[in-house]
Amino acid sequence: MTTPIVLITHSPPDDIRDAVAEHFGDEANVRFLPDLNGPERDTALRTTRAVMTYHPIRDLGVEAMALLDNCELIQCLTAGIDYLPLSEMPPHIPVAYNAGAYVEPMSEHVVAMALAASKRLTVEHRNMKAGEFNQFVPTKKIRGATCGILGFGETGREVARLMRGLGMRIEALNRSGTTGEEVDFIGTLDDRDRVMTAADVLVITLALTRNTDRLIRSEHLARMKPDAVLVNVARGEIVDEGDLYRHLIENPAFTACLEAWWIEPVRHGKFETKHPFLDLPNVIASPHNSAMTGDALVVAAKRGAENVLRMLRGEGARFIASDDVRML
Amino acid sequence: MTTPIVLITHSPPDDIRDAVAEHFGDEANVRFLPDLNGPERDTALRTTRAVMTYHPIRDLGVEAMALLDNCELIQCLTAGIDYLPLSEMPPHIPVAYNAGAYVEPMSEHVVAMALAASKRLTVEHRNMKAGEFNQFVPTKKIRGATCGILGFGETGREVARLMRGLGMRIEALNRSGTTGEEVDFIGTLDDRDRVMTAADVLVITLALTRNTDRLIRSEHLARMKPDAVLVNVARGEIVDEGDLYRHLIENPAFTACLEAWWIEPVRHGKFETKHPFLDLPNVIASPHNSAMTGDALVVAAKRGAENVLRMLRGEGARFIASDDVRML
Repeated sequence: MTTPIVLITHSPPDDIRDAVAEHFGDEANVRFLPDLNGPERDTALRTTRAVMTYHPIRDLGVEAMALLDNCELIQCLTAGIDYLPLSEMPPHIPVAYNAGAYVEPMSEHVVAMALAASKRLTVEHRNMKAGEFNQFVPTKKIRGATCGILGFGETGREVARLMRGLGMRIEALNRSGTTGEEVDFIGTLDDRDRVMTAADVLVITLALTRNTDRLIRSEHLARMKPDAVLVNVARGEIVDEGDLYRHLIENPAFTACLEAWWIEPVRHGKFETKHPFLDLPNVIASPHNSAMTGDALVVAAKRGAENVLRMLRGEGARFIASDDVRML
Repeated sequence: MTTPIVLITHSPPDDIRDAVAEHFGDEANVRFLPDLNGPERDTALRTTRAVMTYHPIRDLGVEAMALLDNCELIQCLTAGIDYLPLSEMPPHIPVAYNAGAYVEPMSEHVVAMALAASKRLTVEHRNMKAGEFNQFVPTKKIRGATCGILGFGETGREVARLMRGLGMRIEALNRSGTTGEEVDFIGTLDDRDRVMTAADVLVITLALTRNTDRLIRSEHLARMKPDAVLVNVARGEIVDEGDLYRHLIENPAFTACLEAWWIEPVRHGKFETKHPFLDLPNVIASPHNSAMTGDALVVAAKRGAENVLRMLRGEGARFIASDDVRML
């Protein structure tokens, strides 16, 4: 039996090459598409059992995808794949997303944003620069406060673990309304109002699907505590952009921590907002960089490789994209 | 036996009055100095067994202090009492500081600052306002990184618990070099160099004493990792002001999170720095407000009352100021 080929569509740095090679061991022959030319490239495409990729359409192209005769899995290395037009992909090849690829750095980023907002760090820093030393303005206590989590997948559950360690109550929503994780409340998206009303910190870790697009609009924001903190590390589209902007203007004690945006460079080729969020004092913005701790790409590549190995071993790949994943 | 009088030198809001009254129950007759006049005031001062105060010299004055014939404890409500000129206080009355009074809000504030710096929240927000969307600039991972803690009292140990919950290693220093707390290293101030070299995040929670004044100077900062984060929630004087400023200028990846300052309103009547720290991009500043969560003053008053109760019950008050507490 020949060793199966696994084709990686980009040319990663050595630490990732080494990590992936080590992870597959002698169970796969890892090839990198940019290293291959002419007939060697065609053969690799025709014989590969799996493709690992950041963006199959950009990095492979339609012609190369048509050659994937023996491919049983397209393993994306990003956690979200809503940017992928699945209709342009070979329909017979399952596409997997890299669930939880960046769970540790993303959940740490959530804690950083939620606490920075709760403790007024950016607001009072600015006030100090303006000559105010507001030693007696109250800040929000974390211990005993409620963290609402919309989307209780890998990232949501890790956020819950970190927030519980800080003494927060956890109220979470997922598709099933059940979880093995320790929570104070678990429900489905039908319980959105309850959780949004209770939350001191509301964290969005949902995948963007047809069901979650503009899930949060003005009528839902209106139910939130006036000094609540909203943290979006998922996709901008889950929150209505105009509604959020108006809510921030009308509720100066409310803070939005925005790591995910509506128009972003990776998905749309540019960063753009319809409203000047960055000019608001009650916004903490980050450039969708929550995944970018030093070893994050290595960890993500290993997690992707792990799922490919499941397929190669006949255990079945996990996290296959289903129909309700949104196609842009 | 008459119920002992406990005299509070200020006029707190009702929630604090209620909490303190409830805490003492029938074990003390709580009086508030601003409510008393003339002979009633003199009698209360002469008969009180304990005084609870934010600032005995300011709120009592030398004349009233001279009347404290039966007072066995001056219980300060602040955690640090380095601002008190103990030499101007009646030498026969023990003065207690309110150890751990604000331990929960302060330790949460430490986590907020350490993570905000590690995740570049303020830096990248500023960069976004300047039109940069730096999605691939690495940030620091918290899990597995080392948190050094200088001063392992109530606040230091609570910081350790929160940071361990986030997956950090803990290297701490205290006077004894021993602790019952779960740590990866415990030592004394003689181990300063080791901990400062190892720390990704260095938290200062030491009391300001003759031994800790300017404990950290340029030669110690020079041992730290170039991208380390220093968090000072104790007293500005523990770090040499000029040395820290120069270190920040020379090490742009190093961040200082300053909650405690050298010249501050409560202790010095004004806020002032010798160097323009607030103009540096690698400083996160807060106005010594870490204690100010909603219920913090109530909790602090209860903790002070608890120590007074120990004295009244003959169990002995704790946290009596010793000679090495610095007198300004």
